[in-house]
Amino acid sequence: MLKNGWFFEDDMPLGVALQIKDSIYSSKSKYQKVEILNSFAMGKIMLLDDKLMLTEKDEFYYHETIAHTSLSIHPNPKKVIVIGGGDGGTVREVFKYKSVEEVELVEIDEEVINISKKYFPDVASELENPKLKIKVTDAIEYVKNVKESSYDAILCDSTDPQGFARGLISKDFYKNASRALKEDGIYTCQSGSMIIQEKEFKTALENMRSIFKYVDSVISIVPTYPGSLWSFLIASNSPIDKKIKSKPFGKTRYWNENLHEKLFEKPNWIKEKYFSLQPVK
Amino acid sequence: MLKNGWFFEDDMPLGVALQIKDSIYSSKSKYQKVEILNSFAMGKIMLLDDKLMLTEKDEFYYHETIAHTSLSIHPNPKKVIVIGGGDGGTVREVFKYKSVEEVELVEIDEEVINISKKYFPDVASELENPKLKIKVTDAIEYVKNVKESSYDAILCDSTDPQGFARGLISKDFYKNASRALKEDGIYTCQSGSMIIQEKEFKTALENMRSIFKYVDSVISIVPTYPGSLWSFLIASNSPIDKKIKSKPFGKTRYWNENLHEKLFEKPNWIKEKYFSLQPVK
Repeated sequence: MLKNGWFFEDDMPLGVALQIKDSIYSSKSKYQKVEILNSFAMGKIMLLDDKLMLTEKDEFYYHETIAHTSLSIHPNPKKVIVIGGGDGGTVREVFKYKSVEEVELVEIDEEVINISKKYFPDVASELENPKLKIKVTDAIEYVKNVKESSYDAILCDSTDPQGFARGLISKDFYKNASRALKEDGIYTCQSGSMIIQEKEFKTALENMRSIFKYVDSVISIVPTYPGSLWSFLIASNSPIDKKIKSKPFGKTRYWNENLHEKLFEKPNWIKEKYFSLQPVK
Repeated sequence: MLKNGWFFEDDMPLGVALQIKDSIYSSKSKYQKVEILNSFAMGKIMLLDDKLMLTEKDEFYYHETIAHTSLSIHPNPKKVIVIGGGDGGTVREVFKYKSVEEVELVEIDEEVINISKKYFPDVASELENPKLKIKVTDAIEYVKNVKESSYDAILCDSTDPQGFARGLISKDFYKNASRALKEDGIYTCQSGSMIIQEKEFKTALENMRSIFKYVDSVISIVPTYPGSLWSFLIASNSPIDKKIKSKPFGKTRYWNENLHEKLFEKPNWIKEKYFSLQPVK
């Protein structure tokens, strides 16, 4: 909701409130409403269907977490799929691994890619990388049809599991993702707020545990997401060892090697509620 | 601001938005407006002068951080001052150390203590502890007059440094706090949002560094505070060693021994901006 110079999300009972300078862009794509606003505290912000996707000033927490907690624990990530993430932030971080030979960005909505290039050039900075293949299509269908055992990592940087993104936390989807990954491949996804999306987190966790042999989570923060305490799930069919095996080059603003292992540590209530028993298939 | 069934803080350009069920209590004390609202996502919430102080559901992040990152690194905390914190949450955590013999709670506004006992009994649960001495007075004056070298820890759980709390980040105040502490005593305080209160954080940090020999910080989260990434400063005249030396008994919901050291780790941008040089007097 945009009212009296403030934006706040009103689809959940807890959200961020941002004072807005002006509206920069608004359109209706084939899939969703796409808006760019200019906020006082966080610079430009992108909304999809009235939900805050990213802000200029804090996008790096999310993008660095999803890319570096997963790729740094892989010994040699070469072939990677990024699902959603049309803004390019995750792709930018993925290309910090010298071993990466090919990234497929599977974004359903081309409009997101185009407006990110125009309004968030620092986020979209690697969207023209020749090693990037952009596929404007539905990731659920795409992952079903890719070659078996051929990817080192799949990073799901999607919207919340609603509407067309709902299938991204289903068993069927995880089965296809698992099939697409090599034996030591890593699947990771953002899995929502630990404060107000416990149901969605639980569904994703349970479905993932029923498909992958090993599942762990990373608890990070995204200052402008509801409740900030943001979860990411990491799954693999090989044991998940959080020791760093590959190092990103270049600058990171949030993630560093000391912080890395700590992102796998869980507050007591989360440990007790979800990880007191870690079922292994 | 309370509008259309939502509360959001509008004194800063970034804040939390909470959908409100109803208003439970409102009064004007000698010092400030005191309100209790009932929110959908976070249970009862307490506002002082329209600023969110605590919510039933996430108060433990703050209270456990301020108490356990400081007292657990002290070998034998016996005598403690808590400044502000009339709600009792910090005091509740301080009493989890068996070594603690006496706690002085210095709260300027008695109304906060009374309404916390009534509306937040789980937060106020130790406010009747016989080892607690409640002093309804100005902490700045109080700390000036306490006996020298007699406290193991001073925990400043105050409102932001505005109005009557402004003096709590001054050199004079730190000088008096330093004087009140034993040689290995620890001073800690909440030092605001790392996202939108950088100026206040910098002032507190610089003033503290000019008085105490050692200053470090803890970067924790409070899901309902602006930007969530919440800072605490820790100062001492003995080296600050983050290894745990005293263990709290009883249950903690956020803090645990693995998470403890993580809280001293800083995101890169914070490390570079404030801690690349750690001046030692």
